[in-house]
Amino acid sequence: MSYLKLQEKYREIGDLEHALAILDWDEAVMMSSGGGAIRANSLATLSAHVHRIKSDPDNAALLDEASGDNSLNEWQRANLEQMQREWVIARAVPEDLIVALSKASSSCEQNWRSLRAENDWKAIEPLLREVLKLTREKADHLSEAQGISAYDALIDLYQPGLGQASIDPVFEDLADFLPGFIEKVMGGQVAPLAMPEKISEEKQKNLALTLMQKIGFAFENGRLDTSHHPFCGGVPDDTRITTRYNEDNFLDSLMAVLHETGHALYEQGLPEPWRGQPVGAALGMAMHESQSLLMEMQVCRGKEFIHFAAPHIRKELAGGDLESAAFSAENLHAHSIRVSRGLIRVEADELTYPLHVILRYELEKQLLSGTLEVSDLPEAWDAKMRGYLGLSTLGNDKDGCMQDVHWYAGLVGYFPTYSLGAITAAQIFASAVKDNMDILPGIGRGDFKPLLGWLRQNVHGKGRLLSADQLLNDITGSSLSTRAFKQHIQNRYVHD
Amino acid sequence: MSYLKLQEKYREIGDLEHALAILDWDEAVMMSSGGGAIRANSLATLSAHVHRIKSDPDNAALLDEASGDNSLNEWQRANLEQMQREWVIARAVPEDLIVALSKASSSCEQNWRSLRAENDWKAIEPLLREVLKLTREKADHLSEAQGISAYDALIDLYQPGLGQASIDPVFEDLADFLPGFIEKVMGGQVAPLAMPEKISEEKQKNLALTLMQKIGFAFENGRLDTSHHPFCGGVPDDTRITTRYNEDNFLDSLMAVLHETGHALYEQGLPEPWRGQPVGAALGMAMHESQSLLMEMQVCRGKEFIHFAAPHIRKELAGGDLESAAFSAENLHAHSIRVSRGLIRVEADELTYPLHVILRYELEKQLLSGTLEVSDLPEAWDAKMRGYLGLSTLGNDKDGCMQDVHWYAGLVGYFPTYSLGAITAAQIFASAVKDNMDILPGIGRGDFKPLLGWLRQNVHGKGRLLSADQLLNDITGSSLSTRAFKQHIQNRYVHD
Repeated sequence: MSYLKLQEKYREIGDLEHALAILDWDEAVMMSSGGGAIRANSLATLSAHVHRIKSDPDNAALLDEASGDNSLNEWQRANLEQMQREWVIARAVPEDLIVALSKASSSCEQNWRSLRAENDWKAIEPLLREVLKLTREKADHLSEAQGISAYDALIDLYQPGLGQASIDPVFEDLADFLPGFIEKVMGGQVAPLAMPEKISEEKQKNLALTLMQKIGFAFENGRLDTSHHPFCGGVPDDTRITTRYNEDNFLDSLMAVLHETGHALYEQGLPEPWRGQPVGAALGMAMHESQSLLMEMQVCRGKEFIHFAAPHIRKELAGGDLESAAFSAENLHAHSIRVSRGLIRVEADELTYPLHVILRYELEKQLLSGTLEVSDLPEAWDAKMRGYLGLSTLGNDKDGCMQDVHWYAGLVGYFPTYSLGAITAAQIFASAVKDNMDILPGIGRGDFKPLLGWLRQNVHGKGRLLSADQLLNDITGSSLSTRAFKQHIQNRYVHD
Repeated sequence: MSYLKLQEKYREIGDLEHALAILDWDEAVMMSSGGGAIRANSLATLSAHVHRIKSDPDNAALLDEASGDNSLNEWQRANLEQMQREWVIARAVPEDLIVALSKASSSCEQNWRSLRAENDWKAIEPLLREVLKLTREKADHLSEAQGISAYDALIDLYQPGLGQASIDPVFEDLADFLPGFIEKVMGGQVAPLAMPEKISEEKQKNLALTLMQKIGFAFENGRLDTSHHPFCGGVPDDTRITTRYNEDNFLDSLMAVLHETGHALYEQGLPEPWRGQPVGAALGMAMHESQSLLMEMQVCRGKEFIHFAAPHIRKELAGGDLESAAFSAENLHAHSIRVSRGLIRVEADELTYPLHVILRYELEKQLLSGTLEVSDLPEAWDAKMRGYLGLSTLGNDKDGCMQDVHWYAGLVGYFPTYSLGAITAAQIFASAVKDNMDILPGIGRGDFKPLLGWLRQNVHGKGRLLSADQLLNDITGSSLSTRAFKQHIQNRYVHD
């Protein structure tokens, strides 16, 4: 009975989080600027209601009683464990701090949208300082409640169980390995034929919708729209992905869509009977990113996919020009795996991307601990960019420390999940294609059922039944390791 | 202090109602079909949270104390009166009934969307019966708490203070007067030149946006989209209107936009310091409809507006064909005031429209009291249509009793507000143009500032400071009366 009472409370939380998810999407995709202030208030109030239910003092006794209930099945028990984790987290942070942080980050994020375009660091700086100050307070509370470091406590919010101890060796390995590897790959690269420019948004969108459909996105449970920054939002039954269109680089927009489609397939494949309950959620943001990067990096930038997609790309974009050499599978593939050092993380290729993330990982640790002042961020960013990628962002903050929404929206500890996702993606995909020999040939002929079926069974449909580490061990035979990722980039980029 | 505590509670309610408003809009405009079930749950939970705050037993003492607080200014006192009214209503209806009704009507409305298209009355009938059963229970609770009839209690939800006693004589007057008047007007009508067909949605939307802008819609606080049924949703800071486009009748879609623009201007003009508080809301749906119909019927179907708009219409729609006689101001005006008997309320002209409403008013009273069975609704609808408009809907329920979303969405007692709005619009506009002699000439040259300024000052900016009846007396010198409406239609349609 105690367990069922808790489940009922989480049903209510799920309904409120549905509202939060749709309002967040709406804010980024639909809302007019003048709606921002009142929207921030509404999001803060909804968050407060969620928090109030999660931190209700009555939960202590309910959780205690439920944990002694031997009639629970394995899903219910895993659900209960998630509830216990959320209880500890919810009690750790005072409600007024949650409201203050929600308001500060809504306001900061809204201002960031215009100030980034204006390259106006000075104007956003005080807003970011306030967000970071409140985030630090939150991290301190979480740290105390869980007996882990403040930064680990933030990371744990995005990928439960993850922390600096497991990230540091992985990132140190890549920070060592990648710069030399990139140098070598770029030295051997031949420039592909230039892509046609000025491909209309409408054509690009039609192509994106065609490929999303082929891959298995369920349009009766979701949609594709346009926003400032591509993302996957909404809820499993109503999954909303966005992209932005660059008329001079359709592949960039298309790959963003395919990336978000990977996220969306995870959401849409979560276990149906557990929708809205903690055990029915995705395993965390690193695992989520593994699904988007498995789709983008392992599948869609691979030869098999490009050979399947090339005729569709020619049909949707090239008009009658079906023989154009620029649209040949070989040339498209060369573009899709082209490596270059750039300023922008979301435009980076899979070799330079981890360096963008490692830079942010290092800086946010310092921002959080206070060893880096917010006012010194532009220069620190520039120094690391020069070190890792040989590029400067001095005076160009919009492409430097203002390029990503995360910190401005209060997301600290989130960045590492991107590259951990990339490593996990390589590890999972290597096991998948070994486990089911139809997956790779299927992709080549546009049949994604073997892949999607395998992911549904082994990843998506598991929800939070297992921990990320258990899941990875179950399906790949080992914990997180850079081995498959390094093997993958060797195979793709080095032709001896 | 008690008053301020109540105000703080209503701030929270305002935030939750913001979420409800945006989620409602999203459901009608954006949501994929598969998101429906979980959306219904979310809306129900949010409504329950609102209800819980409004019906909190602590409010009794707070309201009691606040009512003795002599330091309150007139706005605060009016706000308090609204809170007292909402307290009585909230306590009257049990929370489980509110949740059940919200779920039943969400489900019924969602099914109605596809079943109406399929003309499938049999499939929607049980869902409607359930909605009406729960609505009747709600009405009975409200009736008991307020000492008014069950049907009056429902009407009062949409237009506080309104009831059968004031509606019956007005509707009887129109039901007597209009059929003969329509006969006379139609007898003297000359068919205008046919409008060009196949005007693209894109062109129509651009025209709509141009005219919305001219009239004064604040796009930084709202947007225009497409939905199944035109409506005005969202909140004052973020007002969202919709239309549907008919490629063969652009005037229909355009007038729907201008109608919804009238609603939107009311919302956007509500008193800024009182956003989210009860006194900051619109006066009720009849008064809201007076603002949309003032814009559509009094202003935009009038000669002055059409003469101003005709060059814009030619420019946006007619391409180079600027001399087309079909697009002359005279011909456009003839179309915009053309009278014809049709099956569809939302396509009706201003003379037949009240008969559509009176039909629904009579039927919903019977449905509520139980003197009409839901299963007999199609035949009863048909009988009244034949009586008032000489048209049959037998076997054509999609254009009969399934044409409007209202009952399927649980809105009973709402229909009369449309025609009371039309009558109020005529009464207010007659006073406005007498009061400010710049209004009519302004409209003729596309300057809507005199009109909008007058409405902001006399209607929009008042919120719920006064009752609808007080407001009407203040600005027109009398309570609701059909006099100005009859005068208006005489002036417009009878050329002796």
